[in-house]
Order: sequence, then C-alpha cells, then structure tokens
Amino acid sequence: MSVAAELNQDNALPTIEGEIPGIAWVNGEFCPLSEAKVSLLDWGFLRGDCTYDVICVYKGAFFRLEDHLDRFLASLDKLQLQMPFDRHGLTEVMVECVRRPGLRDAFVKLVCTRGLQPPTFSRNPRDALNQMFVYSVPYTFFMTDEQRERGMHIHVASTPRIPPECIDPTIKNYNRLDFVSGIFEAYDAGADQVILPDQYGNITEGLGFNVFVIKDGRATSPGEGVLEGVTRKSVLELCEEIGIPAGLGTVSIDDLLYADEAFLCTGAGGVVGITEVNGHVIANGMPRETTRRLDALYWAKHEDPAWITSIDYGS
Amino acid sequence: MSVAAELNQDNALPTIEGEIPGIAWVNGEFCPLSEAKVSLLDWGFLRGDCTYDVICVYKGAFFRLEDHLDRFLASLDKLQLQMPFDRHGLTEVMVECVRRPGLRDAFVKLVCTRGLQPPTFSRNPRDALNQMFVYSVPYTFFMTDEQRERGMHIHVASTPRIPPECIDPTIKNYNRLDFVSGIFEAYDAGADQVILPDQYGNITEGLGFNVFVIKDGRATSPGEGVLEGVTRKSVLELCEEIGIPAGLGTVSIDDLLYADEAFLCTGAGGVVGITEVNGHVIANGMPRETTRRLDALYWAKHEDPAWITSIDYGS
Repeated sequence: MSVAAELNQDNALPTIEGEIPGIAWVNGEFCPLSEAKVSLLDWGFLRGDCTYDVICVYKGAFFRLEDHLDRFLASLDKLQLQMPFDRHGLTEVMVECVRRPGLRDAFVKLVCTRGLQPPTFSRNPRDALNQMFVYSVPYTFFMTDEQRERGMHIHVASTPRIPPECIDPTIKNYNRLDFVSGIFEAYDAGADQVILPDQYGNITEGLGFNVFVIKDGRATSPGEGVLEGVTRKSVLELCEEIGIPAGLGTVSIDDLLYADEAFLCTGAGGVVGITEVNGHVIANGMPRETTRRLDALYWAKHEDPAWITSIDYGS
Repeated sequence: MSVAAELNQDNALPTIEGEIPGIAWVNGEFCPLSEAKVSLLDWGFLRGDCTYDVICVYKGAFFRLEDHLDRFLASLDKLQLQMPFDRHGLTEVMVECVRRPGLRDAFVKLVCTRGLQPPTFSRNPRDALNQMFVYSVPYTFFMTDEQRERGMHIHVASTPRIPPECIDPTIKNYNRLDFVSGIFEAYDAGADQVILPDQYGNITEGLGFNVFVIKDGRATSPGEGVLEGVTRKSVLELCEEIGIPAGLGTVSIDDLLYADEAFLCTGAGGVVGITEVNGHVIANGMPRETTRRLDALYWAKHEDPAWITSIDYGS
C-alpha cells in the first residue's frame, strides 16, 4: 500500500458535520476542535495579522520539529507577536494535542494572532492582547494516490503572487486571496493545483508547497518571494546527500515547461512529480527517477532519529 | 459638542473584557458579540477568503444603505460567494442587530466567508459551505476630537500596498499584512495613521479610508488600487453639489505634500484634514475651508431622507 493510502485509510478530513478527531488548545484550555474559533473582532481575522506553522506527526514522532519551531518563532519576531509560553512549554502543548486524541499521524498547527484591542482602546498593534491556538487534525495528503502516481497537473495562473515588498512571504501567513483567484483559474482549466507567477512572470510557489525543476542534472527552486519551506530544505539536503547539485534561483515559466523533471514538495505529501503545466506535458509525462528517489528518501527520513522527535503517548 | 464627542460619549469600543454592547447573527441565530466567532478551519480565516462591508447607523437610520448593499453583493459575486438570504432578508437581520440592543448609533458589519470544506472533501472553493455573519457594534470615530481639530498626522509608509493585479481592492477584504507593516512604521514615526504607496510611489489609501488632495481648486482622489469607498463617493457628490471640480486620478506623494488642502474620508469619522505627512506640514498646518465645509455637509446628509433609511425600533 502506498504511503498516501496507508495514511488516508483511517483518517477523515475535517468537515462541518460531526466531531473532528483532533483537539485544540485555546487560551489555556483544551477543547474539541469544533469549538476552536477566533473572534470576529480579532485583528488576526480583521487584518490577516497572524502567523502559523504546521508540524507533521508521522508514526508517533514529530518530523523536523526544531526547524518548524525556529521558523514559527522567527515569524513571531518579525510580526512582533508574543506567545504565552516558551519553546519547551509550546512543545508540551503540542504533545498533548496528539496524545489526548491518540493521533499517531497528524498535523499539529500553531496559530498566533494579533488578538483583541486592549481595554485602553489603544490602536497600536503592540498593545493588543495576542491570542494563541494550538490544534491537531489527522494527517492527510492533499493529493490523491492517482495524482501522486501520474504526477500533478498544474496551472500557472495569470494572477501574480503578492510581492515580497508588500508582505514578507517568509512569515507563514493567511493573506491568500491571490491564491484564491488562482485556484478558481486552475479549477476552470481542469488542473489539480495552482502555482502563482511573480510580477515578472517567474514561478513562485503553490498554496502549501514549493516547486523544483531539474535541468541537466541540477535542481533549482525559486529563491525569492516564497515561503522558506521545511520540506524544501529537506529536499535540498537530500540532494546533497545523493550528490545532485541543487540550489535556489530564478525559475521562469519556460524553465518549468521544458524541465527534465519537475516536482512540488510539501509536508502534506512529500515529493510529488509535476507532469503537466497549463496543458503542456513535462518531459515524458510521468514522474521520473530523481523525483521518485527523493520522495522515497524523504519518507525514509521519517524514521531517522536525526530528523524526528518521538512523542511519549503514555499508557 | 462636536459630532465625535457626542457619538463617543456613550459608546465604548469593544474590548476583551466584559460584554460588548452589540449582537451578532451567526448561521441563523442571534448571540452576544463575545460569542461570535469564526472556525479556525474556515477558509475565510485560513486564506483570507472572505468579504465584508460596514454600514453606519446614525440617529436611528442607516446611511447610504443601498450603496453598501450594492458593493457587498458585488464583492460576493466577484468571490463567487453566496449568502443565505436575499437583499431584503439581509436588511431585516441588520435591523435586528441594532434594534435588539437598542443601538441608535452603530456600525453594522456584514461578513461572508468561504467557510468549511464540504463532507465530500472537495477542495474546490465553489463546493465550500459559505458562512455568514452580521453584527453590530457601537459607533465610534477612529480619530480623537483633538486629531479632528488639528488634522491628522500621516505617515506614508515604505511598504507598498498589495497591487490590484494580485488582490482586487474593490473587494473589501481582510488581507492586510501590508497595512500592518505600515502601521508599525507609522507608530514608530509618531504619526496618527498610515497611507500606503503603490509600487510606483503614488498614494493609494489608508486602512479604512480614502484620501483626497485639493490643488488649484480641484479635488482628486487615487483612482486605482483602492477600495471604492462609499464615503469617497459621498465626497465626490458633495463636491459636485457645491461646484468644486473633483475626480479620480493619480496622486503622487509630492501632490500630497504640496497640496493646498488634503483630507481623508471614512464612514468612521467623515471628512478629516490631513495636516502633516512624514513630518512635512501641509499648507498652513490646519484643516482648511473646503475640508471643513465638506465635513459639515457630509454630516448634514445624515439627516437627509434621500441619503438615509430610517430603522423601525418598535416599541
């Protein structure tokens, strides 16, 4: 059975109906995920003024926990947000969020919002009462087994990504109406997923994934105007391990269309081939050797003590 | 007593503590505003995939109700969102939101989010279960009486506004991390409010207000990359009534710095002079005649049957 099928078989995606098999920590208390909500008056909602991160739990262990915590803490600093605990205290809450519902394959999500206006009525964001949310949901791939097998059909939208001068994309954030436009375009075009170009027509990223192209043996991922993905970092390290020259750089749409191989990478799926872009078939139209090899290595690392942090589920 | 002082005297801004004197309609039921929340899993939160509008209630009447409803319905169309009632049904809920708490001066806020993933697990935003929220809060100005009197001190930030190619600013939305950066800059510079430039260095808008400059008797407001403000529309109509040439166009930072008069306009304050920009004093440093005249006319229109819709508060 494939990794995706194995993970998806027992896990249901959250829906509006029924109880969701995950829990949340909100302002000091645990509650069912269905009760985990943000106030309509929270500046995190009203201004998209919040940051988040998502850590994968696979077979009872966090994957690259410290990398995710480093990024989340850096995002908090960049937005001048404070969470109500230190790194260790945060990890304890994260553990509880998977231990209590007994989730061995899960996403743990951290969200810190600007929060509510203080009783002084100050409009200075530094005075707001920041709000913290931690929650777990069952692990699911965002692509189907079929899509993993045949490769993803991608639409590069006409809507450009918000430029990094306007919003720093290294702060993982929810300002994504650009992606929403792009997703509509992608669905209308019959594609599986969308990638947004920048304002100069180069490739940036997808909603939740980075992109790589391989040409003449060298792997390149867009370096500017994108999230610094932890899976991207993993791929760069795996390339080094197996001797494939890899790095960050400019990737034009043509670089993608005429790549020897192309793939996306995400914590919610691993390394997955891109085999069609705007109706144009990439290379031979199937995920190729390096893509498959990197994906296998990526999943193997999920059992490598150097990359994981085991969770004590107790009795 | 000034309009601001009169309105602010009995109204408290919403705070994290205690009950907020307004109510909300959420999914078919009325509840205290403190219980009005959006799910952490709502795409409206996770992707900024929602639209909203704010209608002023002044002395027991909606101000320019139909203009706000027109804009809200247009935003719903642009985002392919559906609300659970027609225009008339929406208005009935809006009336209840001020009638029940007895608010005669209020903001009524409409929010429609993409909502939750459907039970089919479809990732197509067209299949999501859109969520609708309507709520009221007491009317408050976003500037103090002192600021209205001396004029606003504005900081034009170095952070540019999200370009209209990326996110359509005529859809009133919450993707505002660009403004958050700008607000930090403004506070650090000791200013009252921020205006963002576009990527070419021209003026766009503030968070919740449009901007006008008057030069040689002509009033101009930025035409591109901004919200089509209902108060901006009011100002353009008032200019026509009193014979001041006015229109939309490009406004450079120098146009603002060297204007004969400059002002911002918002439903949360009316027409308010801008008298300092990045430490540079505009004209004589005080709100001038046309600004004051337009503000007086704007407030007078709040009792003009052609511009208002009276609310039946019942017994």
